[in-house]
Amino acid sequence: MTDIINRTDLTFMLRDWLRIEDLFEGERFSAHSLETTEAMLDTAERIGSDLLAPALRAGDTDEPWQDENGQVHVHPKIREAARALAESGLFCAVFDEDKGGMQLPFLAYTAAMGILHSANCAAAGFVMLTVANARVIANAAPGPLFETFGAPEVAGETFGTMCLSEPHAGSSLGDITTRAVPAGTDDLGHRYRLRGSKMWISGADHDVTENIVHLVLAKIANEDGSLPEGSRGISLFVVPKILPGGERNDVAVAGLNHKLGQRCLPNAAFNLGEGFATPEGEAGAIGWRVGEPGQGLPLMFQMMNEARISVGVSSAMTAYRGYLIALAYARERQQGRPVGERGGRQVPIIAHADVRRMLMAQKAICEGAFALGLYAARLQDEETVAADADAKEAAGSLLGLLTPIVKSWPSEFGQTSLHYAIQVLGGSGYTRDFDVELLYRDNRLNPIHEGTTGIQGLDLVNRKIRRDGAATYRRLRERVEATLASASGHAVLDSSAQAVRSAWQAIDAAVDVLLGLPDDAAAAGHATAFLTAMGHAVIGWIWLDMAALASTVTATAQGEAARHHLSGKIKACRYFAQFELPQIDGWLAPLMAGSDAVAVMTPEEFLGEAG
Amino acid sequence: MTDIINRTDLTFMLRDWLRIEDLFEGERFSAHSLETTEAMLDTAERIGSDLLAPALRAGDTDEPWQDENGQVHVHPKIREAARALAESGLFCAVFDEDKGGMQLPFLAYTAAMGILHSANCAAAGFVMLTVANARVIANAAPGPLFETFGAPEVAGETFGTMCLSEPHAGSSLGDITTRAVPAGTDDLGHRYRLRGSKMWISGADHDVTENIVHLVLAKIANEDGSLPEGSRGISLFVVPKILPGGERNDVAVAGLNHKLGQRCLPNAAFNLGEGFATPEGEAGAIGWRVGEPGQGLPLMFQMMNEARISVGVSSAMTAYRGYLIALAYARERQQGRPVGERGGRQVPIIAHADVRRMLMAQKAICEGAFALGLYAARLQDEETVAADADAKEAAGSLLGLLTPIVKSWPSEFGQTSLHYAIQVLGGSGYTRDFDVELLYRDNRLNPIHEGTTGIQGLDLVNRKIRRDGAATYRRLRERVEATLASASGHAVLDSSAQAVRSAWQAIDAAVDVLLGLPDDAAAAGHATAFLTAMGHAVIGWIWLDMAALASTVTATAQGEAARHHLSGKIKACRYFAQFELPQIDGWLAPLMAGSDAVAVMTPEEFLGEAG
Repeated sequence: MTDIINRTDLTFMLRDWLRIEDLFEGERFSAHSLETTEAMLDTAERIGSDLLAPALRAGDTDEPWQDENGQVHVHPKIREAARALAESGLFCAVFDEDKGGMQLPFLAYTAAMGILHSANCAAAGFVMLTVANARVIANAAPGPLFETFGAPEVAGETFGTMCLSEPHAGSSLGDITTRAVPAGTDDLGHRYRLRGSKMWISGADHDVTENIVHLVLAKIANEDGSLPEGSRGISLFVVPKILPGGERNDVAVAGLNHKLGQRCLPNAAFNLGEGFATPEGEAGAIGWRVGEPGQGLPLMFQMMNEARISVGVSSAMTAYRGYLIALAYARERQQGRPVGERGGRQVPIIAHADVRRMLMAQKAICEGAFALGLYAARLQDEETVAADADAKEAAGSLLGLLTPIVKSWPSEFGQTSLHYAIQVLGGSGYTRDFDVELLYRDNRLNPIHEGTTGIQGLDLVNRKIRRDGAATYRRLRERVEATLASASGHAVLDSSAQAVRSAWQAIDAAVDVLLGLPDDAAAAGHATAFLTAMGHAVIGWIWLDMAALASTVTATAQGEAARHHLSGKIKACRYFAQFELPQIDGWLAPLMAGSDAVAVMTPEEFLGEAG
Repeated sequence: MTDIINRTDLTFMLRDWLRIEDLFEGERFSAHSLETTEAMLDTAERIGSDLLAPALRAGDTDEPWQDENGQVHVHPKIREAARALAESGLFCAVFDEDKGGMQLPFLAYTAAMGILHSANCAAAGFVMLTVANARVIANAAPGPLFETFGAPEVAGETFGTMCLSEPHAGSSLGDITTRAVPAGTDDLGHRYRLRGSKMWISGADHDVTENIVHLVLAKIANEDGSLPEGSRGISLFVVPKILPGGERNDVAVAGLNHKLGQRCLPNAAFNLGEGFATPEGEAGAIGWRVGEPGQGLPLMFQMMNEARISVGVSSAMTAYRGYLIALAYARERQQGRPVGERGGRQVPIIAHADVRRMLMAQKAICEGAFALGLYAARLQDEETVAADADAKEAAGSLLGLLTPIVKSWPSEFGQTSLHYAIQVLGGSGYTRDFDVELLYRDNRLNPIHEGTTGIQGLDLVNRKIRRDGAATYRRLRERVEATLASASGHAVLDSSAQAVRSAWQAIDAAVDVLLGLPDDAAAAGHATAFLTAMGHAVIGWIWLDMAALASTVTATAQGEAARHHLSGKIKACRYFAQFELPQIDGWLAPLMAGSDAVAVMTPEEFLGEAG
């Protein structure tokens, strides 16, 4: 089987580039070291290679199914892999010690998750969902609610979900109609009965763990029975499948969704309070409020922001696995001869210029996207351990600015990368005998869930750039300039640095145009293109930053393999600078020209109908 | 169910833009008219809507299967649809009357096929393969071989295949090892016994028709038993499943391929002469040579060139179906409110700027790609009816220049279009409840089969542009200039025309660079990027040509629907000019800068290994 991770490169990124050891010098992470981090990565690689990756095809072919009692079952191999993950201690990695956690940096956890996502991104979703869920409870309800529902998640005994969307309300959460009616208080806090229908709930039910902890967005009914309008009326509730007394709660899977990919992770339409069970003698799902009324969306967005970073890393690593498969195939498969040569033996297809170009693109996309995800995780650690409020705000706002890119760029260009992975394998890549078609299906979810690419564009342009007059953007630019300065001493990076500089000048000009627009609506039509363009500039910067380091340490590198790794990084940076960054101007062209070509189109003109 | 074709637009393209009626004025097509063409399109639309489209999901879910006797069975709905197609007379459309055909223009046939591809591209593949197969036999062996094997295909009684690839020889056909040993002559011509293994054979076996006619590339063994080297040693053979006497030939499906998409059309590893049957008492597949020894590849390339146009049209129309589904969904689905508005009812998502942008991109890609395919089909008719050798050569070489673009641009950008179709549907688009995910899987084959995108790039750059010193390219440029001249009188097209002019100036400059390269190998690394860039320029030209016509006829258009159709064409042209054409410079940048970023990468540097 193909490897799932290049540990040489991961060590380069964690230790040399992101200097994870600096984090261990502070108090929060002082119990840890590079060795404890590597031990967790070893665990992830072992479980990933031994259990998750071998379950990839089986979990796709034999999808989750619902028995006559409504219970959802996953593939036995997936159950085994998920249980091994739960028992590995990975779930507790990032939690505080007093919450039963290991208190490792988010960076270390993200690297471990990256390995698992490479092995089987959908199965890794069980971990991602559970950890993010427990973190919300830990932050917002650290007392009895966390002890009762969060702590078993941290221990890997219970899995978690996030229940946001409803059939009529996906991107538009303010329109949800799940209703919570107050039902007194108890030792756990404010009790409610919930009724409503949720949609697209991953892990809504399964047989990996006995209990499942749902975090549910709902609206607390007014006394007249009406629901508050808009997103400010949304509150957050914890709703377990099994109540603390052992009784079955009134939650039920209404039907499993049959997906294009990520099939091993059940995803369902999910009903609360429809009378599946009658806990304490009556229908209605029993839940407890997390945080204050009306705070549901801000609380959920803590989880959502982490989930968006996870989606980015998952995308990067799903594509990365495809890259490793394509690379191995291209070095093995004999076909054709160099252009212009007629006789002699066939050559490995990596010798063909266009195959090598596709592999180069994959390397640049996947390693660049993974690096960005790790960079974001380190920013989260910087925010956590910041010495003062200013430093905390600086790290947090920078992370906020980058989050829509961390989420969307890997998901979109990961698909491009997997397109190439299939293409390298040719007809074989189109068959289910190889996994690249499966990875291509798996990753196609990532530009959709946890906020579509279009939503990320609006977030970046209107909330993250226009709202603060590009103040945070300018802070990012300082980091870019610092990278350009550090690259300036390396002749091998001259053309790359020049391309990165030009790219950011183009983004600067676009930001000026965006700031000058009259309102958010005017910016909306150009938001996705800007997101794409700035994403490329960010990845170009990340590559230049890594390449500058690679160039620096080349002189002291021991052995040919290490030198090849470093020269490969430098060449991938050049590839990205020369082949990818020139595309930015094209994407920005409609914005810079003030094109209204999309805005003027009416629904009736698409096919030609009377109005 | 969503429509499968916008006949208003198709009529605009066939009658108004490509002036199909001009073809009926010549002798060859004089029996036909717009009415007979429309009648065939009606038939295609009826069978497409009634039988092919409703079989799309079923044929995907329940794949072809092989029974204990090795016989392959397709889904009953697919069998019914394929038989209806065979009985409709569509197979005979383009054949000469004296071959049992209707002698319709290839343009009319291509339009009808486009409708079928929209309905179910894989099922339409049965027609495409059979017609292309019979045309090769008709051209190269119009006597007894055609009467025996081709005529039943024209009549829809027998289906055909093309057997090129072998397990070790896909893009590299010169390396095939299927062996043909002379076995005398008979009424049908030169008989051979064939032995070898073919791969990726679509329609290799099925239960739609009793007999199947295989066109097989093989090498005639020398007297010492050796095989001639390279592609010049390849000959072409017709090898039927059932021999004329009724005996089973020694051909057998070794195993079905399990594909990502296009599942209803069986695709198989296919053995000849392995002893599955012993016709006339001994193992060895009996076949007859088509054409002269060593002429296999040129003969097969007649079929291949038509197949490449078909793949382009199939891609365009698979994406087009996705566009129609996404458009219908976007006009129906209520979600969110315009940016900046908080209250009030939700709006159809087509009101959101980014959704409209994605629909606009889909319209521009699909209608542009279909138009290009129809343009290519008309060139083929021009070649057929040319008054003299010069005109024939002019049309043929222009078609040859465009063919790699006709094949690859729709297949690659059709996938982009289907990416958007899924994205418009959001989570729903990721489920098998909607067909966009299926279409996305179906179309993913198209950049691979009948010559990968990389192969098309090499064909365009080295064979079609560099070999004749860009003489044919300059002939294409004259047509582009003619379009620019015709657009110049329309103020509404000014910015579009300027963008098209700039695009072609960029392509001109790139062609100069390509012509200046020392050899084909030097061009190889930039071939795919140039193919993409020139493809965009071609589609921009096609759009401008259609928009100029739309602008001209707007004054006399009757009714709001017709006016909306025309203004939609003009706006789609503007979209393509303003959003898409600016990307050309970015794709050409590495070529123009002489980048060696890909060429310098060694296999060991990808991951960092010792050499």
